[in-house]
Amino acid sequence: MTLARPAVAAFQPPRRTLMGPGPSDVPQRVLEAMARPTIGHLDPAFQTMMEETKTLLRYAFQTENKLTFPVSGPGSVGMETCFVNLVEPGDKVIVCVNGVFGGRMLENVKRAGGVPVTVEDPWGRAVDPDKVEAAFTTHPDAKVLAFVHAETSTGAQSDAAALASIARRHGALTLMDCVTSLAGTPVLIDEWGIDAAYSGSQKCLSCTPGLSPVTFGERAIDKVKARKTPVQSWFMDLNLVLGYWSGEGKRTYHHTAPINPLYGLHEALRILAEEGIEQAWTRHRAQHEELKKGFERLGLAFVVPEAERLPQLNAVFVPEGVDDAAARGRLLTEFNLEIGAGLGAYAGKVWRVGLMGHACRPENVAGCLVALEAVLV
Amino acid sequence: MTLARPAVAAFQPPRRTLMGPGPSDVPQRVLEAMARPTIGHLDPAFQTMMEETKTLLRYAFQTENKLTFPVSGPGSVGMETCFVNLVEPGDKVIVCVNGVFGGRMLENVKRAGGVPVTVEDPWGRAVDPDKVEAAFTTHPDAKVLAFVHAETSTGAQSDAAALASIARRHGALTLMDCVTSLAGTPVLIDEWGIDAAYSGSQKCLSCTPGLSPVTFGERAIDKVKARKTPVQSWFMDLNLVLGYWSGEGKRTYHHTAPINPLYGLHEALRILAEEGIEQAWTRHRAQHEELKKGFERLGLAFVVPEAERLPQLNAVFVPEGVDDAAARGRLLTEFNLEIGAGLGAYAGKVWRVGLMGHACRPENVAGCLVALEAVLV
Repeated sequence: MTLARPAVAAFQPPRRTLMGPGPSDVPQRVLEAMARPTIGHLDPAFQTMMEETKTLLRYAFQTENKLTFPVSGPGSVGMETCFVNLVEPGDKVIVCVNGVFGGRMLENVKRAGGVPVTVEDPWGRAVDPDKVEAAFTTHPDAKVLAFVHAETSTGAQSDAAALASIARRHGALTLMDCVTSLAGTPVLIDEWGIDAAYSGSQKCLSCTPGLSPVTFGERAIDKVKARKTPVQSWFMDLNLVLGYWSGEGKRTYHHTAPINPLYGLHEALRILAEEGIEQAWTRHRAQHEELKKGFERLGLAFVVPEAERLPQLNAVFVPEGVDDAAARGRLLTEFNLEIGAGLGAYAGKVWRVGLMGHACRPENVAGCLVALEAVLV
Repeated sequence: MTLARPAVAAFQPPRRTLMGPGPSDVPQRVLEAMARPTIGHLDPAFQTMMEETKTLLRYAFQTENKLTFPVSGPGSVGMETCFVNLVEPGDKVIVCVNGVFGGRMLENVKRAGGVPVTVEDPWGRAVDPDKVEAAFTTHPDAKVLAFVHAETSTGAQSDAAALASIARRHGALTLMDCVTSLAGTPVLIDEWGIDAAYSGSQKCLSCTPGLSPVTFGERAIDKVKARKTPVQSWFMDLNLVLGYWSGEGKRTYHHTAPINPLYGLHEALRILAEEGIEQAWTRHRAQHEELKKGFERLGLAFVVPEAERLPQLNAVFVPEGVDDAAARGRLLTEFNLEIGAGLGAYAGKVWRVGLMGHACRPENVAGCLVALEAVLV
């Protein structure tokens, strides 16, 4: 005898404006691409699409790294893929922590058997390069420097070029989180000399969540190939993934890639290439300026000092006397507008307003300000 | 100066009939569901959809396990999630290997620091319960029995009820791969006493690849909670994932779930509930019988003895004198029909013809036989 059949109606999601920390609004073109017929992941047509996606991702990352591809999982899997491959048990890793995602990096280092050296900066501030320099002086044997370019929990942006150059001077690899920065603010993998980086599909790329673009330079690949111990994760082991994504020789079955979401990413990356990445950066900056003016008018104070602020993620303090959850609830139910709550130490105290990718449009800025004004009365 | 913008045309996939080992044909209803507007993963509307998905998955797994949810990654991530949580360093694990996926389980046990005891059976055969009984007699301290219910590389089905009962008698947990069996042939988690199982979205559920339904019973959860060492993967650590998927109390941010693919899974599971799972099993069996008749007419020999054969995955030997790749190439280009190649030891020697979920229809069986006949002349 089998269990009774559940009676569940079709799910018709409400139409929201997504101005939180991601997912961001997904353009209709991307949604439609995802609904195209599924084909096999070893189909020659799919392989062509994969190669195009890699080319498009290289443009987004501004890199010529051959090993640039979307990991078949959310940004957290991209993060873990980087750590489990680049960190061997006993490796000393300098980890910069200035928010939730730096903390997650630290946890990844520990679970990969690495020896973390933590460089702490206050929440809402950039990573201080002087502290990183000092950490390398104290720990000249550090093998990897890991930092978050754009802290999604606070909206602070760090000077990736400066940090990578310190690491290189000390003979260490640089591992960068650019989940929230990619396509919203300059990410220049080759110019900055970043050895490994991961991002997410659902931020400034405006694709659906679930894919994590990554890129690895030669020095990073050399380190993976020279490992003395196997990578602890079978799924994330780059030595195995390479045969699936490398595009060289015969494609080896590893896992089944998420076909339709990849159609969506392909289309989202095409939209970015059509606009031009510099134009996308400019658009994010310009809309941020508009939002900032409105926030100032409403008396909302930014968490991050101006020079370290991300245009695409605007964290402001919840004003005194305003009930965080109730206000966000009203935005959602009355205005179909999603903004982000505070994370970790900022829970209940901070709102995070995203202007990411397709969500970064004048009408959204205007609508958000109107809605905020209504609930702040 | 930025890199040049790549000029890439929109990807229009060909319309194939997917009769390989997965992905299988995805119904239009599922594709359309995936194209609905993206909402936030912490939106109350999304949480309702998640709870419904869990209810629907319990029906598919025939279980009342509360901890039943889709892992945000392909089946391989579901597999690894089971192993890294249930196996602690030093744990003895009996692993049944009768094809590629048993071998992958073995690799997972090793990477999780477990001590594998391998029970081998020939490719194309079911796991022999007597060998498992003998392994427990020799290794009474084994903590987990792991086996593949439906070997996707060969089309052999093992007696899950018998294997789980042996494990239980010896005080071990049972961990089952039902990637290819779920919804195609009976999978009775509670009746059989399976403690942990994982599946995939792209086989008999006929959703797009990229999600891995899993279920964990109380004994499995107790083992995870009693661990002395942390789970080596941050992303897969059930202690953390629980707060995101448990549906109890406040939902804690862990990662960003793949929203739109989950719309698709929700719809695919609704289709299963509408048909009824017993009816789905019957349909797979009936179409398999038709396909079998046709194969016999064409002189194609099954790899697996009749009693151990999966209806939804039909492995046959490539006839003498037929060029494997050329024949499959013709099926694809002339008939838009995908069938699967052989894996591992069967590469070049075996074809795998899937009758999974939505692909398991009379017109597909007929069309496949016509196409095969044409290329076998």
